[in-house]
Amino acid sequence: MTTIAYLGPEHTNTHLAAQAKFGSRSQYRHEPTVDDVFTAVERDRAEYGVVPIENSLEGAVTHTLDRFIDFQDSPVKIHGEIEQPIRHYLIVAPDTELADIALVFSHPQALAQCRRWLARHVPHGAPRETNSTADAVRYVMQKKRMRAAVGRKELAQQYRLRAIPIPEERENRTRFLIISKHRPGKATRSKTSILLALKDRPGALYDALMPFKREGINLTKIESRPSKKKAWEYFFFIDFAGHAAELRVKRALKALGASTSLLRVLGSYPAAPKRGR
Amino acid sequence: MTTIAYLGPEHTNTHLAAQAKFGSRSQYRHEPTVDDVFTAVERDRAEYGVVPIENSLEGAVTHTLDRFIDFQDSPVKIHGEIEQPIRHYLIVAPDTELADIALVFSHPQALAQCRRWLARHVPHGAPRETNSTADAVRYVMQKKRMRAAVGRKELAQQYRLRAIPIPEERENRTRFLIISKHRPGKATRSKTSILLALKDRPGALYDALMPFKREGINLTKIESRPSKKKAWEYFFFIDFAGHAAELRVKRALKALGASTSLLRVLGSYPAAPKRGR
Repeated sequence: MTTIAYLGPEHTNTHLAAQAKFGSRSQYRHEPTVDDVFTAVERDRAEYGVVPIENSLEGAVTHTLDRFIDFQDSPVKIHGEIEQPIRHYLIVAPDTELADIALVFSHPQALAQCRRWLARHVPHGAPRETNSTADAVRYVMQKKRMRAAVGRKELAQQYRLRAIPIPEERENRTRFLIISKHRPGKATRSKTSILLALKDRPGALYDALMPFKREGINLTKIESRPSKKKAWEYFFFIDFAGHAAELRVKRALKALGASTSLLRVLGSYPAAPKRGR
Repeated sequence: MTTIAYLGPEHTNTHLAAQAKFGSRSQYRHEPTVDDVFTAVERDRAEYGVVPIENSLEGAVTHTLDRFIDFQDSPVKIHGEIEQPIRHYLIVAPDTELADIALVFSHPQALAQCRRWLARHVPHGAPRETNSTADAVRYVMQKKRMRAAVGRKELAQQYRLRAIPIPEERENRTRFLIISKHRPGKATRSKTSILLALKDRPGALYDALMPFKREGINLTKIESRPSKKKAWEYFFFIDFAGHAAELRVKRALKALGASTSLLRVLGSYPAAPKRGR
């Protein structure tokens, strides 16, 4: 039986993403931090790990990016990606009046995404940040009449609470990475993620992008993170269409070496299917 | 008397940065969120605002970046920048034993930056995230024997607590923006910040950087943020050396128009002095 480590606790969006990918015949273990998910895979306590990498409203999950920077020689690579819509619900006891709610608990990102709806519909509910949406519901259970949580519908079912759908104003999706020591099989549409540091000279970023332009390789993402060694020096994460075993990608990566002081391929893996709104 | 709005509460790093810049002869008003600081300046309740934009360990302050995206036609521009070293202290009651501490309160970034030192020196202290380092000290005052906070030395003095220096493992600096409706005077070393959206075509980022390369303009920073309109579409924030009134910068910005679907100059302002370690 395959073991999957994921960023817990149970019933979070990451858990749901892992289950959507690996199904009911796998064994799941939740880990308290992104770092612990990586460690579980590195130490063979799990064959695969699932961690969030990016949300379409909130941006990058910096803990996950920084784990790649801090452990550049980890045997763990990106094995795939999962994309998933996020739907928020206001979770309350069945007999609670929204006007009576004094505190609304949830993960900071969920609170931020629902801020406007909450201001209108839960006028006296002060936001309270929790480590996860699952934790938020536990706070509601302690004092049901005056508290609410924002989270997934499944959480309400589990605790026999009411789930009121919060309409999405904007497209809200999260992208998760599957990490593993195994390499994925060939795919019709591959994607590659790299980590690089530029040489300290004017035009270095432009020079770094030139090989991709020349080879006709389409960049899908560029993200910068502090190097943490020296203030205002950065690492770049770049995603592009193609597999590191392709000739044109090999040529681009070789050329890239000239303008970078560090270059790591974090993995070539099947791209998640494109979806419309 | 000049009024300065800043991201509060009082005695935070942003307050300190504002005071370092505007001195004791200004009037200060603290605001609860980044958005409120911008609004105070937009509605003439303050002439200047001070907000954090970036930390050398944690990266971008996304609330501040997103405020520029969400209010693109605001009359408020970037007027300057302030750079400041961050020094953390463990703040405890004078007679507290570190081994007795059960909870350590602070802002999530401060907790993250001191994680290793805390694990070694406050072995039983579970981290508790607060909205600010000032809030953290208030929690300590409620139950002094078993609690500690991480924050600035000045906070300990204010509450007559003890401040134990936490050694920095890595260079820890924060950069703040000064925002205003006024335009700054000419400087010997100017910097310009722009916000742009790329046209949806392969090589668009490369094409956007080309005018800077051609004009010999040095990019000091590039940061991407989700557009929030469509999943996996991004805005870019670019900082470069030079003033928007310079001829070569004008030429570059004009050329940039061809590969962008949106382009806003957020301000040209005096660059903070470069400092060594």
